[in-house]
Amino acid sequence: MTYKFAKRIDVIPRSFVRDILKVTENEEIISFSGGLPNPISFPINEIKKSVDNVLDNDGAKSLQYSTTEGLYELREIIAERYKKYNLKVNPENIMITTGSQQCLDLIGKIFIDPGDVVLVENPTYLAAIQSFSVYDPVFKTAPLCDDGVDLEKLEEILEMYHPKLFYAISNFQNPIGISYSKEKREQLAKLLKNYDTVFVEDNPYGDIRFIGDDIPPIKYYYPKGILFGSFSKIVSPGMHIGWAVADSEIITHLTTVKQGTDLHTPIFTQMIVSDYLKNNIVDEHIAKIRTLYHDKCNLMIKMIKKYFPEGVKYTEPESGMFLWVTLTETLSSLDLFDIAIEKKVAFVPGQAFFANGGGENTMRLKYTNSSDKEIEKGIKSLAESIDELLN
Amino acid sequence: MTYKFAKRIDVIPRSFVRDILKVTENEEIISFSGGLPNPISFPINEIKKSVDNVLDNDGAKSLQYSTTEGLYELREIIAERYKKYNLKVNPENIMITTGSQQCLDLIGKIFIDPGDVVLVENPTYLAAIQSFSVYDPVFKTAPLCDDGVDLEKLEEILEMYHPKLFYAISNFQNPIGISYSKEKREQLAKLLKNYDTVFVEDNPYGDIRFIGDDIPPIKYYYPKGILFGSFSKIVSPGMHIGWAVADSEIITHLTTVKQGTDLHTPIFTQMIVSDYLKNNIVDEHIAKIRTLYHDKCNLMIKMIKKYFPEGVKYTEPESGMFLWVTLTETLSSLDLFDIAIEKKVAFVPGQAFFANGGGENTMRLKYTNSSDKEIEKGIKSLAESIDELLN
Repeated sequence: MTYKFAKRIDVIPRSFVRDILKVTENEEIISFSGGLPNPISFPINEIKKSVDNVLDNDGAKSLQYSTTEGLYELREIIAERYKKYNLKVNPENIMITTGSQQCLDLIGKIFIDPGDVVLVENPTYLAAIQSFSVYDPVFKTAPLCDDGVDLEKLEEILEMYHPKLFYAISNFQNPIGISYSKEKREQLAKLLKNYDTVFVEDNPYGDIRFIGDDIPPIKYYYPKGILFGSFSKIVSPGMHIGWAVADSEIITHLTTVKQGTDLHTPIFTQMIVSDYLKNNIVDEHIAKIRTLYHDKCNLMIKMIKKYFPEGVKYTEPESGMFLWVTLTETLSSLDLFDIAIEKKVAFVPGQAFFANGGGENTMRLKYTNSSDKEIEKGIKSLAESIDELLN
Repeated sequence: MTYKFAKRIDVIPRSFVRDILKVTENEEIISFSGGLPNPISFPINEIKKSVDNVLDNDGAKSLQYSTTEGLYELREIIAERYKKYNLKVNPENIMITTGSQQCLDLIGKIFIDPGDVVLVENPTYLAAIQSFSVYDPVFKTAPLCDDGVDLEKLEEILEMYHPKLFYAISNFQNPIGISYSKEKREQLAKLLKNYDTVFVEDNPYGDIRFIGDDIPPIKYYYPKGILFGSFSKIVSPGMHIGWAVADSEIITHLTTVKQGTDLHTPIFTQMIVSDYLKNNIVDEHIAKIRTLYHDKCNLMIKMIKKYFPEGVKYTEPESGMFLWVTLTETLSSLDLFDIAIEKKVAFVPGQAFFANGGGENTMRLKYTNSSDKEIEKGIKSLAESIDELLN
């Protein structure tokens, strides 16, 4: 029997990042690939206490089916946390999701008809391309400046294509690490008001800024936007809890499609995260993560300066998890990958992040969860690999 | 700003069951609606021990990102459990999902092109209609006999429409409670061999049979079929762990689309369930659930015999969670619902389960998680509601 798969199967890209997770599970490999938080940042003891609280006080509820919208108490805590940015959010406008990855799938489900134009930053988060591809859009890409999207080009694209969605990562963009400045956020909001394009803001790293001042999400400047969030970078990705903030009309439709997608996010992990946030000063925990990642980032930059050959460019981000490296134009990071893997070091070749091609000479290096020794050794091996590729 | 939602939003049915979850959260209401396991069956203390094991021995792994296919160890345990049916399954052919509900979404994603024919039993699981609707199929329905699908009608439909998928629930069908006999499974397998239709078998209740002998899944008779499973009915729905068993070609595509859907199912709950299954004799636990549900089922039938007016038909299932009740033809269970809610009792009107209409005089009653008192009181109120509707 030959299976007849849906046509979309031919266009959905496989995730290079996820596929090499298996390669990088080999403990001999130093991995600068997948965006893994550093496990020393996981609050294991505090989570253990929260599990006890949940099972002792509310065991039956935590093991039962639950509502699709998510635990109300957790949505209240999330709403409360936005107050530091003067962003007013009602818990009713928050839906809990199975990681913020699920927000992308659900937004695609409710908005994208085949052939609709979806605008993404160039480059953009790989798994966003995957999620949206299922619903058969036409991707257009908007170039990025150091302070966010290129507004002039954006306006041209909005005028010409009237995209259904514009998906952007506002802080420490994955993969290239840039953030929208306050001024850019204000200008973007002004521009978006003239168009029907739905603005979708992803913000998984906003809480872990280690250089400069925190800036409110773009949603503060443009309230009609949809905003995603996640506890994966500040508590634990293993709990896999994210959320979407949106108008009630959108939340209603998200709820309907989430019913068919996974009924609800596990209530057990929702209750644990909720208890953890109630009984711990999470911002103290976050402060430790900021320091840890700042140190790792600094070390990787220092090692690049020490070992990389001339002509290789790299970013110095204010946070996030990645450095973005650009080789000279004629080099291919896919070729480099093959050499580097032999030298037991892995990264993500940049072209995976370009929705419509390009970026062959770029690569993404994650600095968050390698030991200091691994960072030095890995960058040195990578430098040797670049030398080998050059010769 | 007026949102332009995707066209599919107009055709995806909202789940009546999920929507009335909120009504039934009102503690005054006796709910025979959503398919909730009885919380006295949740192994709270054992799960607490497993959480301690996981966090003490493997805390960092349990809180980290994980592979899309799911925890290998858990897939081994699932494969092992099929051996009692002489069904040989490799762990590599199992993918862990966020509840077996997610299997439906992922199967829809990889198989259904707009306009493809999807064949479902009539009636069928409501949230399957929801999941598949997203991918814009044409639904055809196959009638059911007491021992499974009507094979003669099925053959006619296979011949005429060559459906892309045929979705069936092999044991204690939701909503009507019938099971495929051994003979029917064999005959179905023979028939399916002649067609390209992909057979999708859902089996959330197979482990909790309380009357008669266990029968192997249809996959035993028809190895090309896809088989879903779930720990929701035998361990905890709050952990929300299901799985799909399929050919490696299908698993590969499921993995790609799951990457964009939620990256992976929470590894924290996967590891807890895995530890629980390793350190407890789950079949002893299941035996208790079987007895509990048998008693509840018997009691509800007894109460129906005592209180319901003449002419109301009901099933006497061998397991599952539901009785299926058929009122006289002219009555509407939607009208009955309004009367019953005023008398503080809820159920699911049957028409929600018919993909192409029908069933206006039917209803589904869940017997699993009400107290004995509630079952007597609720059935009495329902009987009074029927009397009121009749007059």
